[in-house]
Amino acid sequence: MLGEIREQPAAIRRLLSHEKEIARIGERLKADPPKTVRLVGHGTSDNAATFGVYAFGLLPGWTALRDSISLNIYYDAELDFDGSVVVGLSQSGETPDVVEYVERARARGARTIAITNEENSTLANLVDFIVPLQAGSERAVAATKTYVNSLAALALLTGYAAGRGKEIAVGLFETADLVEETITRLEQPIATMASDFVFVGRMFVIGRGIELSTAREIALKLQETSRVAAEALTATDLAHGPVVALDALFPVWTIATAEANLPAVLEAARRVREVGAILIASGAAEKQIEGAFYRLPTPAAPSVVLSPIVSVLPGQLFARALSLAKGYDPDSPTGLSKITRVP
Amino acid sequence: MLGEIREQPAAIRRLLSHEKEIARIGERLKADPPKTVRLVGHGTSDNAATFGVYAFGLLPGWTALRDSISLNIYYDAELDFDGSVVVGLSQSGETPDVVEYVERARARGARTIAITNEENSTLANLVDFIVPLQAGSERAVAATKTYVNSLAALALLTGYAAGRGKEIAVGLFETADLVEETITRLEQPIATMASDFVFVGRMFVIGRGIELSTAREIALKLQETSRVAAEALTATDLAHGPVVALDALFPVWTIATAEANLPAVLEAARRVREVGAILIASGAAEKQIEGAFYRLPTPAAPSVVLSPIVSVLPGQLFARALSLAKGYDPDSPTGLSKITRVP
Repeated sequence: MLGEIREQPAAIRRLLSHEKEIARIGERLKADPPKTVRLVGHGTSDNAATFGVYAFGLLPGWTALRDSISLNIYYDAELDFDGSVVVGLSQSGETPDVVEYVERARARGARTIAITNEENSTLANLVDFIVPLQAGSERAVAATKTYVNSLAALALLTGYAAGRGKEIAVGLFETADLVEETITRLEQPIATMASDFVFVGRMFVIGRGIELSTAREIALKLQETSRVAAEALTATDLAHGPVVALDALFPVWTIATAEANLPAVLEAARRVREVGAILIASGAAEKQIEGAFYRLPTPAAPSVVLSPIVSVLPGQLFARALSLAKGYDPDSPTGLSKITRVP
Repeated sequence: MLGEIREQPAAIRRLLSHEKEIARIGERLKADPPKTVRLVGHGTSDNAATFGVYAFGLLPGWTALRDSISLNIYYDAELDFDGSVVVGLSQSGETPDVVEYVERARARGARTIAITNEENSTLANLVDFIVPLQAGSERAVAATKTYVNSLAALALLTGYAAGRGKEIAVGLFETADLVEETITRLEQPIATMASDFVFVGRMFVIGRGIELSTAREIALKLQETSRVAAEALTATDLAHGPVVALDALFPVWTIATAEANLPAVLEAARRVREVGAILIASGAAEKQIEGAFYRLPTPAAPSVVLSPIVSVLPGQLFARALSLAKGYDPDSPTGLSKITRVP
């Protein structure tokens, strides 16, 4: 897992060497904009889909949704796919119900795109366009470079769909350097900090707007590697109930980025402190969070859309370090396999 | 809270006395179908929106999404609302960013509907159509009858939008009786059972398909009233990571209904048992879940779309009973207020 975390800058650069292929797909979409973009994936890929909703909304200004797989496959609802673009996200290209969803959507007239590491997979063979993830073979069960490259691929695709592809590509080159520098700088301090959390069984991770994808991905890494019941919440979700579950033994991780949603995150952090819960602050705007016990600063990304690629790094490193501190094996957590075949 | 739980059958019947108003709105939508339905709400209203995604998909076959409020309000994304119907859900009709979202969507050309208890609220005064919740004044912070009536209102609205309104209305009359009988039957056994959970700090609640709304609402009630870090997961989410966080002290609540998603829920329950976690099984198909420690059977609803109205009841009663067993006040949990004004 650590090897794969460290490999992320190289993986982003490898993806960028395929910029032209992704540009062509983005330009095709731009020429004939979809009415709706439907994103489907599970686990880490579903968290990348959360990012996709914001990337499509912020760049080309298109409505994207994480579509319900059960509505389409199990209930067989008679939905209209005319004018829809479907984006299936699957590292392996073999996730059974993602494949089935894309098959059905295609039969009902949707244009289809796969974002996958495996260009010869079942999913890749089904679709109109393949966005190659170029993450390289991933062996750790807890995906890291796949996630970061899914975000980079979605940023490029939506950038070109908005006629701003070059700007995003330049930003991604810069982001790859920031990712490298951040991993080098944070690896050691996070390893030291993680041992404080050996007895922690539950945690909230707060993000908002585009950083909701980061909160979801950090929570998932904590669950997968460290058996922490970590739940991702928006700053608003927190205020609507979960805030009362907090106490002094309940750590809350807040992700602070200098963007339109920061005030809501600061307010959530204030409420967390008020009830005496232990606060972790990460992100490029962590300094604005008052009273944090732990601070994990990251550099500012070139743009809001690229922020989550940097913001997730402290969570990846922390999940891996906590897993080790608890005596687990972060590379192959008991009870999980790389391709989830259950329905 | 208990008074309001008990009042639910009467609240559903009260809503049904306004069937004609809701029918008119549903028929207007049917005459001019939207390209997209955008649902917005927070907390309990957001859980009702989860139900709405399935009700719109299963009945008229329309694509509905829980739209991102931050994308529209805070990022001010240039989204196209042409052909969209917006459904704002707010008990009070005063939730600030739901009001702001609906205002913007309207200015950008969306048709707008409010589902609210307050027909003279800011939200109600903004919209083209008001669906009156008719839940009656709700004083407990943890909403119960508002949730159930939001589901009933959405079922009626989508039923009429699909030309099947009469059938749904007849089913709702029957459901009101089932709700009454279930509350009477389960109130006492759940009060006894809840005391076993006094030291529980975390829980997963598993539902899938249309019962995902139930899982989310039960998890929210547990957080609000009993300070349990309860997280709602689909059966598939569970397999993609969280399953490894489980151990023998980690209770998992599964909601089993006899519908297309039941096999996935049974498989999730099997994996939960395999790692030795304590299993609670509720719903009309709970008998099919093997090895549950606790069973909370509910009667089968007249149709899949109406199931969640009955399935949520054990969770409401349990959350209230656990709150009392822990020495809290279920009617006004410390730290929450009825109308959440934070952004």
